[in-house]
Amino acid sequence: MTKSSSSCIFCQIVNQEQAASLVYEDEDVISFLDLAPVNIGHLLVVPKQHVSSLGDLDARIGLRIFETAMRLLRILRNSHLGGDGMTLYLAEGESADQEIPHVHLHVIPRKQGDAVEIRLPCSRYPSRKELDWLASSLRSSY
Amino acid sequence: MTKSSSSCIFCQIVNQEQAASLVYEDEDVISFLDLAPVNIGHLLVVPKQHVSSLGDLDARIGLRIFETAMRLLRILRNSHLGGDGMTLYLAEGESADQEIPHVHLHVIPRKQGDAVEIRLPCSRYPSRKELDWLASSLRSSY
Repeated sequence: MTKSSSSCIFCQIVNQEQAASLVYEDEDVISFLDLAPVNIGHLLVVPKQHVSSLGDLDARIGLRIFETAMRLLRILRNSHLGGDGMTLYLAEGESADQEIPHVHLHVIPRKQGDAVEIRLPCSRYPSRKELDWLASSLRSSY
Repeated sequence: MTKSSSSCIFCQIVNQEQAASLVYEDEDVISFLDLAPVNIGHLLVVPKQHVSSLGDLDARIGLRIFETAMRLLRILRNSHLGGDGMTLYLAEGESADQEIPHVHLHVIPRKQGDAVEIRLPCSRYPSRKELDWLASSLRSSY
């Protein structure tokens, strides 16, 4: 039985209680057009299961999200909507401004001069020694 | 033979001509810490092959990028670096501000009040009729 939340807009779409313009659907994932698109063709890929964090999602279903997104990225790119760039974006958790607590990956066709703003400023340049120490710690957990 | 570009910093890392603090490596992908991290633990997952666009990458290798990223996301989350959120981000093409023309996926631990800014404003609210028409067109290409 797939977990679902009656108050979640994405679960409502999965359960056909809310309208959506579906682009793709299978037993694990669903994709539909964003109602407030950055550019025409902006879509979301979502697992059917109500899970807020990608890290808590079954890895197989996580992969299905990205497989679907890559295929849709290609289709958008080959269509008249492709523009001259694409952005993939997934926010998870409050500090990342995740608004709907159900995993969702944005696939966004980009255009020169559109209103998207993405700034990832460096907070502090670590030394190589610090980076190597950290990398070693992460490698040992892999 | 894997495609490589001698002027590409990521190819130089793959070919061990440039220092990097490696977090993961296999025959298809490599992951290392970003030199200019948004927050400590910010890393990149990169295919070994020099391809600028995810849409042009072999789908199997594309999936390996995301599989690696999901695993590293979990490791970061479970470490002291996890913060209370994560951002996954991939830019492709000039209009998306892709700076290095070699596919790379950012995995970024987030913190409340960090300096990241991501704004995805809606350009125009399409009608349901327009969304349905577009979704139907994308579905038929899937």
